[in-house]
Amino acid sequence: MQAGELIRKKREGEELSAEEIDWFVQGYTRGQIADYHASAWLMAVYFRGMTARETADLTRSMAHSGEQLNVRQAIAPVVDKHSTGGVGDKVTLAVAPLVAACGVAVGKMSGRGLGHTGGTIDKLESVEGLRTDLSSSEFLDILLKHHLVLAGQSSELAPADGKLYALRDVTATVESIPLIASSIMSKKLAIGASHLLLDVKFGSGAFMKDLESARLLARTMVDIGRLSGLHTVAAITSMEQPLGRAVGNALEMAEAIAILRGEGPADVSDLCYHEAAELLVMTGTVPSMAEADMRVRKAVRSGAGLAKLAEVIEAQGGSPRQIERPELLPTAPVRLMLRAPRGGYIAAIEAEKIGTASMQLGAGRFQKGDPIDHRTGFVLQAKVGDRLAPGDPLVEIHARSENEAASIQQTLLACYRWSDALVTPGPLVYDTLHP
Amino acid sequence: MQAGELIRKKREGEELSAEEIDWFVQGYTRGQIADYHASAWLMAVYFRGMTARETADLTRSMAHSGEQLNVRQAIAPVVDKHSTGGVGDKVTLAVAPLVAACGVAVGKMSGRGLGHTGGTIDKLESVEGLRTDLSSSEFLDILLKHHLVLAGQSSELAPADGKLYALRDVTATVESIPLIASSIMSKKLAIGASHLLLDVKFGSGAFMKDLESARLLARTMVDIGRLSGLHTVAAITSMEQPLGRAVGNALEMAEAIAILRGEGPADVSDLCYHEAAELLVMTGTVPSMAEADMRVRKAVRSGAGLAKLAEVIEAQGGSPRQIERPELLPTAPVRLMLRAPRGGYIAAIEAEKIGTASMQLGAGRFQKGDPIDHRTGFVLQAKVGDRLAPGDPLVEIHARSENEAASIQQTLLACYRWSDALVTPGPLVYDTLHP
Repeated sequence: MQAGELIRKKREGEELSAEEIDWFVQGYTRGQIADYHASAWLMAVYFRGMTARETADLTRSMAHSGEQLNVRQAIAPVVDKHSTGGVGDKVTLAVAPLVAACGVAVGKMSGRGLGHTGGTIDKLESVEGLRTDLSSSEFLDILLKHHLVLAGQSSELAPADGKLYALRDVTATVESIPLIASSIMSKKLAIGASHLLLDVKFGSGAFMKDLESARLLARTMVDIGRLSGLHTVAAITSMEQPLGRAVGNALEMAEAIAILRGEGPADVSDLCYHEAAELLVMTGTVPSMAEADMRVRKAVRSGAGLAKLAEVIEAQGGSPRQIERPELLPTAPVRLMLRAPRGGYIAAIEAEKIGTASMQLGAGRFQKGDPIDHRTGFVLQAKVGDRLAPGDPLVEIHARSENEAASIQQTLLACYRWSDALVTPGPLVYDTLHP
Repeated sequence: MQAGELIRKKREGEELSAEEIDWFVQGYTRGQIADYHASAWLMAVYFRGMTARETADLTRSMAHSGEQLNVRQAIAPVVDKHSTGGVGDKVTLAVAPLVAACGVAVGKMSGRGLGHTGGTIDKLESVEGLRTDLSSSEFLDILLKHHLVLAGQSSELAPADGKLYALRDVTATVESIPLIASSIMSKKLAIGASHLLLDVKFGSGAFMKDLESARLLARTMVDIGRLSGLHTVAAITSMEQPLGRAVGNALEMAEAIAILRGEGPADVSDLCYHEAAELLVMTGTVPSMAEADMRVRKAVRSGAGLAKLAEVIEAQGGSPRQIERPELLPTAPVRLMLRAPRGGYIAAIEAEKIGTASMQLGAGRFQKGDPIDHRTGFVLQAKVGDRLAPGDPLVEIHARSENEAASIQQTLLACYRWSDALVTPGPLVYDTLHP
């Protein structure tokens, strides 16, 4: 085979065979195929797309390019969960322990935040002493013992994806549905769970700005799962306004704990319970969503979910006391209440701008590798559809200094749109795709 | 500027500014922009195309990437001539001396053959002692003194094109009209003639397989010339069957000499006289094609054209005796006459296959840098439309050995299609595009 010939075939819109794709992916990972071949090929994929079969073959080749954990051989069913990312998205932190508390193992590797979207690992690291850089054997040991593990992404898994993603990032080939889908799913296949629940977000705060793009990405990933023996379900959810009320690492960790206690904001709590129930049904643990929902709410009421989170935090070297008493989580030195500049209904809270504002307070990264401040962020006091009087609390700012708190106020106010007429927020879950 | 951003703009079909294109081209030539950036950008250009303005800017940036000869500052008018290449195309070897003999200077750099199409430099090098690797000052000196120079392509001119072409060759981005057009025209702009005649060939033996592609390429190059101050005219000519009768280096050199003597095959002679006349009209040397045609035929009858070729060959170190007496050109040790296997009209002679067969006899290159045998090739004894009886002479094979001559016969016979009904060959010149 010749790299130029595979580029030409894709350029002409021909379908590549599994052998051709694997030759390209493994050759590129080993450095036998040059970056300039790969970037031309990626651009041809951008324009020509890939069939479901090609996309699944690409994903499997990337999954096979490095270590494979194959966790389902150690314990089954074992579930994985992935969100395409948003602002205020602490869902994994509540769903994973709830599902584990209901008897289904959860083996999860998460990423760090970059740009306006947060990362689960950053939120977890608000807890003192917690280790997320687990070796493969630590990951499996903790999973087997506690039926739950919350680790950072291992660079040993799917190295082809790491290398291709770095190239896509500098060659304007990120925004391609088959490439996005295969990048996400390759790491999932390399972990090797038996079931995967995807939360594909769309809206102003998400990577996918509209419902149709999100649906296409979701369908592509569900198809990859189907063609690769990973039972995958995708929920398509709204990210028009931040999820819940907390935005920022320790603040979101505290909100996840509130959700596990049954004391979280209604929107994000309902989404967490829904996703946990979906996972119980997917794995055949309970026969219906109604029954699954009862089981999940019981794990909340009994405190079993929260206890499971504390248990795994301790297993990973973190302080379980900070889970049992979230007021012990790190807090910012300055709190400032921003108040409503006018009365009326909140018509919109632009999630991406809120995320960017939290970065400015130190809660997120402008560049990969930047340090972050776990303490800073916002607690929204009202959400879309709420009616406020002038001067009512709007956002509590958690900042490193009076100066930073003061200077972010105008930016925050610009995230809000107001209405004099009643505003009804849309649903959170728009659709669920099954294999 | 950032390379990734320029790739993204082109990917989105946005028009790049002259500054952006120049930044990219000069940065790539100096190694400040990576091959992987360039190959992704080239693939985006393949899919999105370029406007006439962008294409002209790209061409000028490539022309400015190295030395610029600016020959029109030394002598004007000074013409250049370029053929997109075919089989049996010895037109430059006759047109250039004819035009110079009619009083218009011709400064020409030519390429070597690769694949099934021959190269003017290879044909010229059939002459003993001839040097074509001229320095810039030698090129200018000979041009000023003889009003004619026939040199090889200098690697100092338009190095950006050399680097980009090598990358396109291995990343399946050759077949893009703006990239092909800018590659050809960048070298023409770097030479800096005042007038350029393009011979854009289409058909089975040409790079462009159909008339419409050839017309688009021709229009693109004429537009580049118009936007860059180079008066450019493009003839669109047929390359369905080999041009003239000789295919192979010394054989084509001999045929060019025959054309200059007025003894060449009608098709290729007429094309040469037509192109020479077009150049005389383009430069304003004579007012009409009719008058130009008379001047050209006079240069043939008087022997002025042939004398000019001998003069420049001598100036470049070659043997003028081989021009005056072409029987002194190198000849192959074996000649074998292939005869018509049936009677009837020749309906087609597949030019590309004839070219490939001549490569097998050593007349062309499979790989860049391969040595070639100047002596070998074919002399067609009949052309499309001719009526033959079984056993009539069809092709004279000039080979290195009896064995090679014998083994090429079946390949040659497969290049022919026959008809029992009268066949009328199409015209050679289909159209001429002006600025």
